[in-house]
Amino acid sequence: MSRIVYVNGRYVPYADAQVHVEDRGFQFADSVYEVCEIRAGRIVDEARHLGRLDRSLEELRMPAPMAESGLRVVISEVLRRNRVREGTVYIQVSRGAARRDFLFPHEATPPSLVVIARGIDPSKSAKAAQSGIKVITTPETRWDRVDIKTTGLLPNVLAKMAATEHGAKEAWFVDRDGFITEGGSSNAWIITADDRLVTRPAEHGILRGITRTTLLDLAAEEGLAVEERPFTPDEVKAAREAFVTSATNILMPVVQIDGHRIGDGRPGPQVTRLRARFHDIAASRPI
Amino acid sequence: MSRIVYVNGRYVPYADAQVHVEDRGFQFADSVYEVCEIRAGRIVDEARHLGRLDRSLEELRMPAPMAESGLRVVISEVLRRNRVREGTVYIQVSRGAARRDFLFPHEATPPSLVVIARGIDPSKSAKAAQSGIKVITTPETRWDRVDIKTTGLLPNVLAKMAATEHGAKEAWFVDRDGFITEGGSSNAWIITADDRLVTRPAEHGILRGITRTTLLDLAAEEGLAVEERPFTPDEVKAAREAFVTSATNILMPVVQIDGHRIGDGRPGPQVTRLRARFHDIAASRPI
Repeated sequence: MSRIVYVNGRYVPYADAQVHVEDRGFQFADSVYEVCEIRAGRIVDEARHLGRLDRSLEELRMPAPMAESGLRVVISEVLRRNRVREGTVYIQVSRGAARRDFLFPHEATPPSLVVIARGIDPSKSAKAAQSGIKVITTPETRWDRVDIKTTGLLPNVLAKMAATEHGAKEAWFVDRDGFITEGGSSNAWIITADDRLVTRPAEHGILRGITRTTLLDLAAEEGLAVEERPFTPDEVKAAREAFVTSATNILMPVVQIDGHRIGDGRPGPQVTRLRARFHDIAASRPI
Repeated sequence: MSRIVYVNGRYVPYADAQVHVEDRGFQFADSVYEVCEIRAGRIVDEARHLGRLDRSLEELRMPAPMAESGLRVVISEVLRRNRVREGTVYIQVSRGAARRDFLFPHEATPPSLVVIARGIDPSKSAKAAQSGIKVITTPETRWDRVDIKTTGLLPNVLAKMAATEHGAKEAWFVDRDGFITEGGSSNAWIITADDRLVTRPAEHGILRGITRTTLLDLAAEEGLAVEERPFTPDEVKAAREAFVTSATNILMPVVQIDGHRIGDGRPGPQVTRLRARFHDIAASRPI
């Protein structure tokens, strides 16, 4: 639960945390966000998350609500006021509130900033990782710029609802050429029969996941074979292991796709090992 | 200007009109809307707008915030409190506020409803129609379900900004096959050299515009030749006339596309005549 939320300059009780009805985040999805994992009171991969937030803002020519140093202070303060040691912090920036118009508002319009922290018991994710998750595939329906982390997430919502209705936890989008792009809220990976880590290159078709990037660091450090290339659902079915990466779940084993078992249908040893090692490397990097 | 806004059961001063930061409209664009023209204190095409709102909700399995009769009362009350006789009313429904999760919230979560009315001097649109507007073309980048009127409008925002930066008022999206889908906030039409009205069929690639539908009624009543088929930018350049339809601007002549003059570069006689006749038919239909 979240007790105190930061909204546009004020720390307010959760129930009073509001934005104007003409906030462009509400009316146009003219808004971007980040979700970071909090571990032992520290923001995992903070610099990368703030760097990506900056990139999202730049791509959309959206002003930053404050300098990065100020944003770091706000995030820390929200964590402190909510006493979050293990959990997530959600950061959303919109182009501000203005009389409804598709065109950008006057440049003096202050962007909106919302920061929400929540404690989450890490044993929940750990438990899920012990049994692994199921995924379904679904046609890629999203807009062309999913490399920008905007709040235009309705296609992701619908895909993940479809997953739930099929007894799965995640939906992997499949593009017109038959290749998996990414999950509704995660990046997709396989480990092939010859032990190669495969994930789609970060281009306009997917979001450059922070956990994905940090895992590539870890793979490089360990000298693992990595191929950044698109792969198909058939390759997933033939894979030794599969998993997703996301800031909230780190590495999560995938044990079924569209009802087909992957490997022996249990979380693979490699993903289990990498999951255990992940925070070593995330923590060892300079902030 | 808008003085009083309806938000979730209350009529509140504009400055206090707020939704929760975890409203799904703000965090996920899990939200739909309508904009209606108000003319002589009456909602033009009210039944069709409310019917389309209903369809948007059904497509997204989103509960309606209240019965249609109640919504009509709220809209009337917002118009009355703002003394709007000529202008627009904006209606937005979201899936409500809930702890952030891609999955739909508990079914007891009340949807959010916001209604904003604004007076607009109709002579502004009439004046613009006298000189016509310019359009640019831009690649179709939007998601696959633009037939649902969601608030996931960032691609439309960016397209219309690009139009403005090219001295134009509207951007027409062009699909992979080279055909125009629709404008950033309007439907696209041409009148061919042999006097046929051409507009793209309403399918998943475009929104079924209310003004578009009412204009099709008018064309049928007048016995005009209409072709519902896709058309290309080259056909626009060769057209006798071109125009857009939208609830806020009704019929608006288009006199240039990508810097090329259409016809003699002035609003054509047919669109000008149809614009003048439009409200006769919109008003004559039973509510």
